Amino acid sequence: MIDIGFDIGGTTIKTGVVGADYRIVKKKSVPTPFGDADALVGVICDTVRELSGGDAVGTVGITIPGSVDKDGGIIDAWNLGLRNVPIKKLLSQRLEAERIIVRNDADAAGVAELMVGVLKGVDTGLLITLGTGFGGAIIIGGKLFHGGLDRGTEPGHAMIDRGGKKCACGHTGCIETLCSATVLKRLGESALKNGSGMIFDRAKKGETVDARLVIECAEAGDAVAAELFDEYTDALSDAIASFVNVLDPEVIAIGGGVSEAGDTLLVPLRKKVPGRTFFGSCGKILKAEAGNNAGLIGSLV
Amino acid sequence: MIDIGFDIGGTTIKTGVVGADYRIVKKKSVPTPFGDADALVGVICDTVRELSGGDAVGTVGITIPGSVDKDGGIIDAWNLGLRNVPIKKLLSQRLEAERIIVRNDADAAGVAELMVGVLKGVDTGLLITLGTGFGGAIIIGGKLFHGGLDRGTEPGHAMIDRGGKKCACGHTGCIETLCSATVLKRLGESALKNGSGMIFDRAKKGETVDARLVIECAEAGDAVAAELFDEYTDALSDAIASFVNVLDPEVIAIGGGVSEAGDTLLVPLRKKVPGRTFFGSCGKILKAEAGNNAGLIGSLV
Repeated sequence: MIDIGFDIGGTTIKTGVVGADYRIVKKKSVPTPFGDADALVGVICDTVRELSGGDAVGTVGITIPGSVDKDGGIIDAWNLGLRNVPIKKLLSQRLEAERIIVRNDADAAGVAELMVGVLKGVDTGLLITLGTGFGGAIIIGGKLFHGGLDRGTEPGHAMIDRGGKKCACGHTGCIETLCSATVLKRLGESALKNGSGMIFDRAKKGETVDARLVIECAEAGDAVAAELFDEYTDALSDAIASFVNVLDPEVIAIGGGVSEAGDTLLVPLRKKVPGRTFFGSCGKILKAEAGNNAGLIGSLV
Repeated sequence: MIDIGFDIGGTTIKTGVVGADYRIVKKKSVPTPFGDADALVGVICDTVRELSGGDAVGTVGITIPGSVDKDGGIIDAWNLGLRNVPIKKLLSQRLEAERIIVRNDADAAGVAELMVGVLKGVDTGLLITLGTGFGGAIIIGGKLFHGGLDRGTEPGHAMIDRGGKKCACGHTGCIETLCSATVLKRLGESALKNGSGMIFDRAKKGETVDARLVIECAEAGDAVAAELFDEYTDALSDAIASFVNVLDPEVIAIGGGVSEAGDTLLVPLRKKVPGRTFFGSCGKILKAEAGNNAGLIGSLV
């Protein structure tokens, strides 16, 4: 009996057979068909047949960058060009598998941390991913909390800045508008008008202004970049403290692009967050560990 | 075997023997000793002895207006003048009871709704109390969620208005700064400078300006009061929508003074909240039902 995971990205599907201790034994990448549910289902079915080589299939786990309902249907995955697709049902009709799980990517990242990362053994935990958006997964009772109405949770769309910036979700003042990697990139771009400083200089030499560049310049001691990064960790600390007041997680795991900054990010957060909570302290703030395979293994249990 | 509940208020302790179906069979009120843990413990012990009349005591439930740690110690109850009081331990030394439970008042209100109110049978629910402050209790898995570090939750101190008003907790922009009954009272006071309108007129006749007066004037069709109440339900709707994005409760129960407004409050909330959530819809918004005895019965299970 073999288990196969799929991490469906906007351009590429990462897939693989997952063996003992959630190690990937056979790995493969295929292009993602855009806006075509039938083609996507076809690719998944073909890949399962190929990777299983005729062996019986246990779990097929599908990680989707979008919202997923309680029946494993895609509610909305705009960067796959899909809306209202009963993907689990479609797959069930064409796949011989013991179990099919469809999960949102942030939720899968949270489950992956529970399986092999820093949320292992934790009863109440929070995973946040700082990427293009602000993803979040909530762990309660040692397992994924999928919301009271079983349609997922959207911690990145909790309001933190009433009357603030418009969010991609259509509302205003969401945590995502202040704390994603996109925000850090935008802060970096704001430094270009200075006409000096390390961000300006490196951009002039052709480097892309993104979250990584701001972090690198801050680490190299550039005052402007350090100030921008401080502004970013200020907002992120407010968001994390707010979650502490509601959930008080034992561990707050931080993943996504910005988390690659490691201690450059974690040290200021550990300094700022505790004093901003109602309790004056908080659980551990740790870098997520499940890494690149989080999406591939995070929908298998 | 009898169960006895205590609802410790700032001035009065409401206590009673709680019988079948959580009905109060013997009731009593005694003044609350201020800032004197020994006296408080003494009053509770004397009352238990008096009400039990020598019968064996099952559960003694103590509801406290303040934060309670996992060992049933009072962390902070400023309007009792108490801080760092191991109240459960002190009571255990002097009481013959099978079980002593000490609980925060908002949590007790949430548990009371689970027992006899609108959260009965609910798996994931939220109770908010709109009083002097903004209290909150979270129900997950059909029972009270006491936070990952078991020191309670403080939903009223989630940040919603970054850079906004200072909160009693010392931080800024908490939900409590925009959504408590105190805020509605303050909005009413702001109408006094108009020199006209129903709030002004009734205040001039000697009525106290409080949340109730604003609601009554809005209900009577006064335009200024209606606008102020609309401003209040706007902020409250943002707060509730934010909780929906994180917890997505099946039922949102609303208690506390402002909830006495009934449909005047509930109708606008039901109209405003769904469209402000990520999902475009939300669980039921209902008036809390456990009423005045919530604190008395809410710490018994």
